Amino acid sequence: MTKFQAEIDVMPKKEILDPQGKAVSGSMKNLGLAEIDNIRIGKHISLEIHAESAEVAHAKVEQACKSLLANLIMESYTFEIKAV
Amino acid sequence: MTKFQAEIDVMPKKEILDPQGKAVSGSMKNLGLAEIDNIRIGKHISLEIHAESAEVAHAKVEQACKSLLANLIMESYTFEIKAV
Repeated sequence: MTKFQAEIDVMPKKEILDPQGKAVSGSMKNLGLAEIDNIRIGKHISLEIHAESAEVAHAKVEQACKSLLANLIMESYTFEIKAV
Repeated sequence: MTKFQAEIDVMPKKEILDPQGKAVSGSMKNLGLAEIDNIRIGKHISLEIHAESAEVAHAKVEQACKSLLANLIMESYTFEIKAV
């Protein structure tokens, strides 16, 4: 069994309004950082998987994202896996 | 002015308990994904910056992280910037 580390990003889909990101965009202007915009805020999840191979680890993370970590109606996910 | 895209991860520090991650770890076992553990959940923020150079963009993102996006007592941040 090898240990893998997965780094997952779960972001609101582009078509979905992101009120938290919009609020932070407004605050950037008040802080004198008007050069920053188009802010979107999602989740970053790091986890460890014990699996025989990178393929198995990949499939387990896919399953975890689909069944628990992301709401696929409103969110999309991307992830990277590396052996540790 | 060049447009840069920044991808920022804000995570709870290692010494800090992450109750959300712990709760999701428990749910993984109920879903038959007991191979997954050590889950930590933070924020992922993507944003755009208009700046003269990558160095200026880097400094602006540092400032935004320190003053607004991360609570440095409990969280640490990492980010990557690329021109778009």
